Amino acid sequence: MPEVRLNQITGDWVIIATERAKRPEDFKHKKEKKEVPQHSASCPFCTGNESMTPSETFRITDSDGNWTVRCVPNKFSALTPEGIIVKKRDDFKECLTGIGLHEVIIETPRHDMTTALLAPEHIMDILKAYRNRQLAFYEDERVEHVIVFKNHGEGAGTSLEHPHSQIVGTPVFPGQVMNRLNEAIRNYYYVNFGDCLYCLYMKGEKDQKERVVCENEHFLAFVPYAALSPFHVWIFPKRHNACYGLITDEEIGALAVILKEVLLRLYMGLDNPDYNYVVRSLSPRGSDAKYFHWYIAVVPRLTKAAGFELGTGMFINTSMPEESAKFLREVEL
Amino acid sequence: MPEVRLNQITGDWVIIATERAKRPEDFKHKKEKKEVPQHSASCPFCTGNESMTPSETFRITDSDGNWTVRCVPNKFSALTPEGIIVKKRDDFKECLTGIGLHEVIIETPRHDMTTALLAPEHIMDILKAYRNRQLAFYEDERVEHVIVFKNHGEGAGTSLEHPHSQIVGTPVFPGQVMNRLNEAIRNYYYVNFGDCLYCLYMKGEKDQKERVVCENEHFLAFVPYAALSPFHVWIFPKRHNACYGLITDEEIGALAVILKEVLLRLYMGLDNPDYNYVVRSLSPRGSDAKYFHWYIAVVPRLTKAAGFELGTGMFINTSMPEESAKFLREVEL
Repeated sequence: MPEVRLNQITGDWVIIATERAKRPEDFKHKKEKKEVPQHSASCPFCTGNESMTPSETFRITDSDGNWTVRCVPNKFSALTPEGIIVKKRDDFKECLTGIGLHEVIIETPRHDMTTALLAPEHIMDILKAYRNRQLAFYEDERVEHVIVFKNHGEGAGTSLEHPHSQIVGTPVFPGQVMNRLNEAIRNYYYVNFGDCLYCLYMKGEKDQKERVVCENEHFLAFVPYAALSPFHVWIFPKRHNACYGLITDEEIGALAVILKEVLLRLYMGLDNPDYNYVVRSLSPRGSDAKYFHWYIAVVPRLTKAAGFELGTGMFINTSMPEESAKFLREVEL
Repeated sequence: MPEVRLNQITGDWVIIATERAKRPEDFKHKKEKKEVPQHSASCPFCTGNESMTPSETFRITDSDGNWTVRCVPNKFSALTPEGIIVKKRDDFKECLTGIGLHEVIIETPRHDMTTALLAPEHIMDILKAYRNRQLAFYEDERVEHVIVFKNHGEGAGTSLEHPHSQIVGTPVFPGQVMNRLNEAIRNYYYVNFGDCLYCLYMKGEKDQKERVVCENEHFLAFVPYAALSPFHVWIFPKRHNACYGLITDEEIGALAVILKEVLLRLYMGLDNPDYNYVVRSLSPRGSDAKYFHWYIAVVPRLTKAAGFELGTGMFINTSMPEESAKFLREVEL
């Protein structure tokens, strides 16, 4: 019997289609392997080609003075960093000039590396770069919202194979994020007598254990009860805070370890699937919001949204979240 | 300069990325052509294979008594038609038994046909089948919402090449649809002194003309001002009504003509792109709602949602809606 589960965090109903369900192994990625060189002369993100990118905004170096992570403006930015926001409206149209910030976080000098295989110490540098850039973006008063994300593989929308993440600061607050805030606020003020929906939810997943993938002192990684798609994993910080940028160095150490473990379990278990991850966060100006809680969503791109999903926003998940979590827990590392 | 446009109907902001914009021709579909037979012995939707499908729920026949359109339960239904809805909840989880209806509308006996190339009279039969099944689904008291949609091509999530649409009745009201209703209700009661947002919006597009693709007595087809993706087309009925199922025969005739024209312009102009279309509608029980207005959204699948879209719900559209509309208007038929 299929189930229709409520994702309390997103407010979406999800159909867990047990009749169509596949075994975890059936989701293994079937892409052609191709040889990727360690270094590419034409890649703007490779060492020696630093002059091919716009001027660096941030870098982290190792003890030998070589960079491990670099941040640069996106050469093909979706928004323009220069200018002022002008609003235009007529009877039925509303728009703003497309002002905003868009940078690339080059995650490693190695062209052929993948995040799952980097050392946790290196992933810490990437996470520190996210923190630095997120806080810097929010200092720009034209920026209303900042999103950090990674596209891994063609199926996840990447166009450059050198490992990188992106960060975008938009001049508007996204409607989807607003809807989620509304869910959280409604829960906080009207439903649960002042409890953070995310804290409550995390406690539930931790107690029930069956959807937990891994855990450490500061973070819990699990396949949510109403996962929108197969092998969707959420990484929640145990300390309540609405803004990623206010993460401590100690927490960054723990996050690097758990993010690596989640990505490595996907890499080994599902044969390096395409995936996106996103850091969902508010601004440091809203960091004391008791109702919102930052987190990371890791979304393997194993299925395709079709007309049903477009027309309802509901998802049909052809895997059981409990089985996906068990499968990931049991991957041999 | 890029623009950030508000899609008033969906409540979403869209980045119109002019710096990244492509020419309309650049969106042409580059899939390999493959030979599709007129009839396939193994296809359950082909004539002669009617016994391979579950029992028919509806059919339309031509003057010779041969079927033109058949409706059958989906053999791989996402939901179960038998049973009662049982709700379960604990502290942090909520779910329903996955009861619901799911049928396939087989659009033509011809295996190799495509909707864009069918005669308008034949498309009328398909649209009549949608009407019949939508109204029948809503008679089932377990059904809260009904969505009619079509997936054309692999990139749009179809798995069977024989032309077909689908209809699903869910036991819950989808969150995304609820959010859109909220936008429309807010507009109706609090913003525009009792005007339907959709009627107002259609008037704006009709007056400004530049995004209109085609029009007839009963319908207007246009690329919306804040189209979420390239060549997105909305077909709005001119008569205000919230429920598709209450469409008249005369309107079905006009809808068949305009739907065919839109699909044919996409087919000829962009070389048979993959697409989805969805019929957005309320129940006939809510058909007198003054704030909602049914319509059809046609969504060519020319770009891929990546981390930015997942994390914000905002879309980056790399085409100018005005240019896309002009391109479609000028396709030679």
